Amino acid sequence: MENNERRVPEVVIKRLPRYYRYLGELLKQDIQRISSNSLSKLMNVTASQIRQDLNYFGGFGQQGYGYNVRSLIDEIGNILGLNDGDTTIIIGAGNLGRALANHNSFANRGFKLVGIFDNDESIIGAKICGITVMSDLEIEGFIRDNSVDVAILTVPNSAAQDMAKRVVDGGIRGILNFSYSELDVPPNVPVENVHLSDYLMTLAYRIKSERDTEE
Amino acid sequence: MENNERRVPEVVIKRLPRYYRYLGELLKQDIQRISSNSLSKLMNVTASQIRQDLNYFGGFGQQGYGYNVRSLIDEIGNILGLNDGDTTIIIGAGNLGRALANHNSFANRGFKLVGIFDNDESIIGAKICGITVMSDLEIEGFIRDNSVDVAILTVPNSAAQDMAKRVVDGGIRGILNFSYSELDVPPNVPVENVHLSDYLMTLAYRIKSERDTEE
Repeated sequence: MENNERRVPEVVIKRLPRYYRYLGELLKQDIQRISSNSLSKLMNVTASQIRQDLNYFGGFGQQGYGYNVRSLIDEIGNILGLNDGDTTIIIGAGNLGRALANHNSFANRGFKLVGIFDNDESIIGAKICGITVMSDLEIEGFIRDNSVDVAILTVPNSAAQDMAKRVVDGGIRGILNFSYSELDVPPNVPVENVHLSDYLMTLAYRIKSERDTEE
Repeated sequence: MENNERRVPEVVIKRLPRYYRYLGELLKQDIQRISSNSLSKLMNVTASQIRQDLNYFGGFGQQGYGYNVRSLIDEIGNILGLNDGDTTIIIGAGNLGRALANHNSFANRGFKLVGIFDNDESIIGAKICGITVMSDLEIEGFIRDNSVDVAILTVPNSAAQDMAKRVVDGGIRGILNFSYSELDVPPNVPVENVHLSDYLMTLAYRIKSERDTEE
């Protein structure tokens, strides 16, 4: 099974969180069962793509019965590892760090925020979401003592690489990087980069294309 | 030319901001010229993919001379529409809105922040990055009077669709949506959705895969 999962294409992996979100919305609306056609219309992908994607993990639909929403969301959650009880810390308690600490969908995805760190003496000791901000000097020890899985980096670009090295030294499992810098870390420590300005650039392109159409 | 651009595949468009970022880093290091091989190593894509991507827009390399970094970044900026002087407003002056207002890479990408709005009386009138927070009641008029291009929505999920309708009524050109909700807007108003929890879910999957390898 592990070997099979390893060959799942990147694009399929990237689509799983989207399935998870849409199925979650269906559950909220108390929809228990959905045909692959309805799901495909809702998500704006073909029904055959959905079947193909899910087949990488064994397939979940019963011919003629559609998908059981609850089972499917649970299975996708398992595939994604959302039920592994991963713990996170946020490094950088500025506006972005605070926004993320308050982002309740993180907790809804099975992540437990266990620590917030900053190097600013005036912030250390303050409470954010019930968690006391700790000094950044404690990071490596905290990760080690608490087997922290994920570090969310919202530090300035200039500090990002150094901080990445420190959390890796502490034994972190993965990094969510909001800085502009591409991080150099060992290959067994996955990094997800959130480049917010990329979204604005893509949007600029789309707006320009619409303008060109109108002209 | 417009017709050609319209057929550029989505994946290529999504890669352009990444090219733009990497080339910007090269310029910072005062690197004026780069071979397609070196650029490919740096960006971890094949040299032929780079050539293929850029060929959608006419191609920019000279055989044997590589790319002139400054010309290439200028051209990609033009393709993306970063030199169109797009203006943005942020709706929702909470932690995330404040973080984005302070995100200087937005300005570096040619976007000008011209307004910040909130519905909380205790925040209206406060200054963020030198901009006075306005009442959300003024949004439609402000967009109309100032021909605002982009609305960045950092409002709660429950308010997102209603706010999307209002900015569209005001004449907005595009929306950057940080809420969980998928927005229903006319097809000529592009929306980019930033689903922060998707990144965490993808990271969870990667961490799980690494764990499976170790076992």
